[in-house]
Amino acid sequence: MKKILTAIAALLVCAFVSSAQELQNFQNGGRQRIVSPEIADGQVTFRLAADYATVVTLSGNWISERGGIPMTKENGVWSVTIDLPSPDIYTYNFVVDGVAVNDPQNYMVQRDGTRYLNMLMVPGDLTANYFEADQRGTVSYKWYDSKILGINRRLTVYTPYGYEKNTKQKYPVLYLLHGAGGDEEAWTSMGRTAQILDNLIQQGKAVPMIVVMPNGNPGQQAAVTLGLPESGRNFRDPANANAYVRSLCEEIVPFIEKEFRVVSKPASRAIAGLSMGGGHTITASTLYPELFDYICPLSAAGSANDEQIQALKKAGVKLYFLACGTSDFLYEGSKTLDATLTKNGLDHIFFESDGGHTWSNWRIYLNNFAPLLFK
Amino acid sequence: MKKILTAIAALLVCAFVSSAQELQNFQNGGRQRIVSPEIADGQVTFRLAADYATVVTLSGNWISERGGIPMTKENGVWSVTIDLPSPDIYTYNFVVDGVAVNDPQNYMVQRDGTRYLNMLMVPGDLTANYFEADQRGTVSYKWYDSKILGINRRLTVYTPYGYEKNTKQKYPVLYLLHGAGGDEEAWTSMGRTAQILDNLIQQGKAVPMIVVMPNGNPGQQAAVTLGLPESGRNFRDPANANAYVRSLCEEIVPFIEKEFRVVSKPASRAIAGLSMGGGHTITASTLYPELFDYICPLSAAGSANDEQIQALKKAGVKLYFLACGTSDFLYEGSKTLDATLTKNGLDHIFFESDGGHTWSNWRIYLNNFAPLLFK
Repeated sequence: MKKILTAIAALLVCAFVSSAQELQNFQNGGRQRIVSPEIADGQVTFRLAADYATVVTLSGNWISERGGIPMTKENGVWSVTIDLPSPDIYTYNFVVDGVAVNDPQNYMVQRDGTRYLNMLMVPGDLTANYFEADQRGTVSYKWYDSKILGINRRLTVYTPYGYEKNTKQKYPVLYLLHGAGGDEEAWTSMGRTAQILDNLIQQGKAVPMIVVMPNGNPGQQAAVTLGLPESGRNFRDPANANAYVRSLCEEIVPFIEKEFRVVSKPASRAIAGLSMGGGHTITASTLYPELFDYICPLSAAGSANDEQIQALKKAGVKLYFLACGTSDFLYEGSKTLDATLTKNGLDHIFFESDGGHTWSNWRIYLNNFAPLLFK
Repeated sequence: MKKILTAIAALLVCAFVSSAQELQNFQNGGRQRIVSPEIADGQVTFRLAADYATVVTLSGNWISERGGIPMTKENGVWSVTIDLPSPDIYTYNFVVDGVAVNDPQNYMVQRDGTRYLNMLMVPGDLTANYFEADQRGTVSYKWYDSKILGINRRLTVYTPYGYEKNTKQKYPVLYLLHGAGGDEEAWTSMGRTAQILDNLIQQGKAVPMIVVMPNGNPGQQAAVTLGLPESGRNFRDPANANAYVRSLCEEIVPFIEKEFRVVSKPASRAIAGLSMGGGHTITASTLYPELFDYICPLSAAGSANDEQIQALKKAGVKLYFLACGTSDFLYEGSKTLDATLTKNGLDHIFFESDGGHTWSNWRIYLNNFAPLLFK
């Protein structure tokens, strides 16, 4: 009897799911579901239903055409088929009569600062580690109270697969910093940090580590998506100089080392950051030369002088990994820092890549320096 | 010397931030930043820059006008000012020449199934607990391996403020289930679960508890935003009947009780769910009558019979909280369940609210039943 009634209950649920599906078909105007983007035979097709639009174009971060690529309309559906770009993660949107529109058929959406953009993932060797691994770590959003900044602030923490089970194990920590316009979600969203670390760890290429991704905008409690008020404090006032870096090194590091099973030693702490976060990385390493044994400024907006590099050398850096794209507008600064490191005899890697100030490069850098950490 | 150089480094970072800001102004066409939505004097104004659009309307879940409310253009900016609806969280978007467009000035975006919608939060008594509390818990995305479903699956876990510090404390757990079209992000996004629990706990109205929000679509690894393939298994095959509920009770509950500091007793387990998740709640409580002492079907798609209710009664339910809106299309089913509970002498609460099958109601229900749990 119980089984029969359970089956009836299950059928009721199925019936409800069916009716929701029907509703969706109804809302879709009875048309066959539009697929976009569709990858086939080395090409990709984008489609958008827009019966009443006058001009629709495709805009994307790999598309150089000014005003985007024109799309054409057939039966109320605009489309365009173009050659697939080389393997990587790209972002795109449509422009409908001058207004940016997301692709309603593509649920993979990234937020770049204040803009929501659709993702186009082109598979290949380069992107292998950007897709989900079999063994997946945990991504958490946590809050810490900052006395230095006077606000409650959110940070993102990646703990590797097995962290919860291996209760005797202590882990090293990578502090991974975003750039201007970014926030505590940038590295997990655009940077694919969880996927890259999951893959590298599963492959035995990187040691299991915790990755902490704070919010580097000192007046901000959290990403703008949470709608929380900013502190209003003036961070250009010299009294507030380096307030965020001080909060990172004096508040976030102890907070993480208290709340997680962490090895509290310089040899188990790494710091890396892109652009503004590269500046934060350099500043943290010069203000607190003994805190981190692994230092990775990426496309960095910042510099260091002889005295600072000598202090770092004395403190005993295990890895100094400097990276920049050769067409990055900050390339000259990275070359200068490379020269300063060389002049002062600090062993380091200057990882030069093609391209500029892009997430494509920052994902490549993470893929390359993470295997060098804590070894 | 070091201080001076640090100051120079800080200035460099400031200069870079300024240049990013200038870039944004440049991209904005040099115009003053548009504000949307803007709440003032009991009204709300929505604005969208769309020079070349022909027809722009405002669509929202509180707007009954067919085709939305027309907007008017001035200096290339479309706008409309309307009376502020009563305090609650609403969703809206613009429709530009027939195409749904998000408000690019409003960074607060919710995903409802496959649609991204902007949020309009109207403050008031009802919404007080929907905003951030001072003391904020952690929201984590974790993965569990399901043998029953044959896939690696993501779930969302809320741990209350203080969980990490109070290392001797064990917590009760609420399993909170979404409806058809939803996934493991629905309750934290549209349901404001973290904010509601943070507020209730901080006010001393609810006991500190863990909230587990699994993905209730048995073939799905995770929310569609992750782009992961579905299992392809046929869940209408009787052999797979109740596969998700079985995974919940036989896999997720033990997984959570192993990975978190949890009291592993029925008196410390609650289950609640909306719509399809209400059906899952009823099914779980009838298939595993001794597992949960607190049972809360909300706008539920499901029913139970005398025998099942008697089994629950025998197992010793501490709270049966049934909730439904009086204009919900599932209201009759809830009334039937209420009558069955009464007939069988199972003490329960039938919480009837105005309105229908809406997140507005589900937030209200969570706000009302969470304080009754584990006491």
